[in-house]
Amino acid sequence: MEYWGYFRSSSSYRLRIALGLKGLTADFHPVHLVKDGGQQKTDAYRAMNPQALVPVLKTGDDLLTQSPAILEWLEEVYPDPPLLPRGAVERAQVRAFCAAIACEIHPLQNLRVLSYLRETYGQDQAGVEAWCQRWIGEGLAACEALLAGRPATRFAFGDAPGMAEVYLVPQMFSAARFKVETGALPRLTAIAAACAELPAFADAHPARQPDAEG
Amino acid sequence: MEYWGYFRSSSSYRLRIALGLKGLTADFHPVHLVKDGGQQKTDAYRAMNPQALVPVLKTGDDLLTQSPAILEWLEEVYPDPPLLPRGAVERAQVRAFCAAIACEIHPLQNLRVLSYLRETYGQDQAGVEAWCQRWIGEGLAACEALLAGRPATRFAFGDAPGMAEVYLVPQMFSAARFKVETGALPRLTAIAAACAELPAFADAHPARQPDAEG
Repeated sequence: MEYWGYFRSSSSYRLRIALGLKGLTADFHPVHLVKDGGQQKTDAYRAMNPQALVPVLKTGDDLLTQSPAILEWLEEVYPDPPLLPRGAVERAQVRAFCAAIACEIHPLQNLRVLSYLRETYGQDQAGVEAWCQRWIGEGLAACEALLAGRPATRFAFGDAPGMAEVYLVPQMFSAARFKVETGALPRLTAIAAACAELPAFADAHPARQPDAEG
Repeated sequence: MEYWGYFRSSSSYRLRIALGLKGLTADFHPVHLVKDGGQQKTDAYRAMNPQALVPVLKTGDDLLTQSPAILEWLEEVYPDPPLLPRGAVERAQVRAFCAAIACEIHPLQNLRVLSYLRETYGQDQAGVEAWCQRWIGEGLAACEALLAGRPATRFAFGDAPGMAEVYLVPQMFSAARFKVETGALPRLTAIAAACAELPAFADAHPARQPDAEG
């Protein structure tokens, strides 16, 4: 397999974690989202992905896009170890936690959205951070609440990391980057710390990627 | 089954279509997202869903949240008729199309985001519409491009409607609501028109719901 991504992109980070948890490897092609006006906007890249987003995963002759779709594909094609529980309701609970990040938080901190805030609303760095803090803070508080009634397991939904952590850890990384207050998120913080001790998460960290910048 | 939703919410609309396609029914509890400062923000509603979002689906004693998770649950528990194809790559392609809507377009037109634009950036109705037009227009153009290389079937991924249409039709409804130019989206427009002829879609239309307003 091969994949195209960017060290700091949450969705690329999700894919790296999932590959690591599954014990899979994929050759990496860096796509710099800022340099050259955005390397994802070239005709060559758009021919692979008309959405001009990372990541793209190539398997055989097929190009897969959108991390939620890629992650479900990985789970279907490489079921061991599983990233989702067995029971339908439990699967729905994990997927709801993931969607709370993928559909409520992450889209609002995307590069193109933050550029719009700067260019159209004249926001400076502080204004952009206030925006990110609002949505990441509110969204992660909801994620903390989603886990509040559950048993105090080491990871979000049990004693092994899975799809919830694939989404959570990159989002916690972004929270730190945008200086989000996480003091009221003890459960999420503990889960992220437990993940950081595992090679699949440590190796997937943006700072460990070949295209990493300071 | 029972569900809590709002006539104009895209994610409630998705759920209604999917239930209809599966031949299922669920008792409806309206949650007015604007009236009373937002009925989804009450303690009683938050006890069901800490995210304070619609829809919620109740099955037995379980409360399911987040439409992407609920839709996958429906597909797993009520597999006939299927809303996703059989092959893993084909499933990934359909899910990528759905995620292009659920993770790239829909979050940016959410009520709480539009309220922020008004309150914090002082945007008027025209400013809010310009924002929506940018993200819905760009996102739907990408969806049109995702289908460009595919056979000219009646629906997005074949001759029967499925998960792609469950996401697309509510998004096209929102596009009209925010006056998005759709002239350059002939394929999506034709698919939405084909859907409108089917009872599962016609019955799920916001205007046909008991809580509908003009």
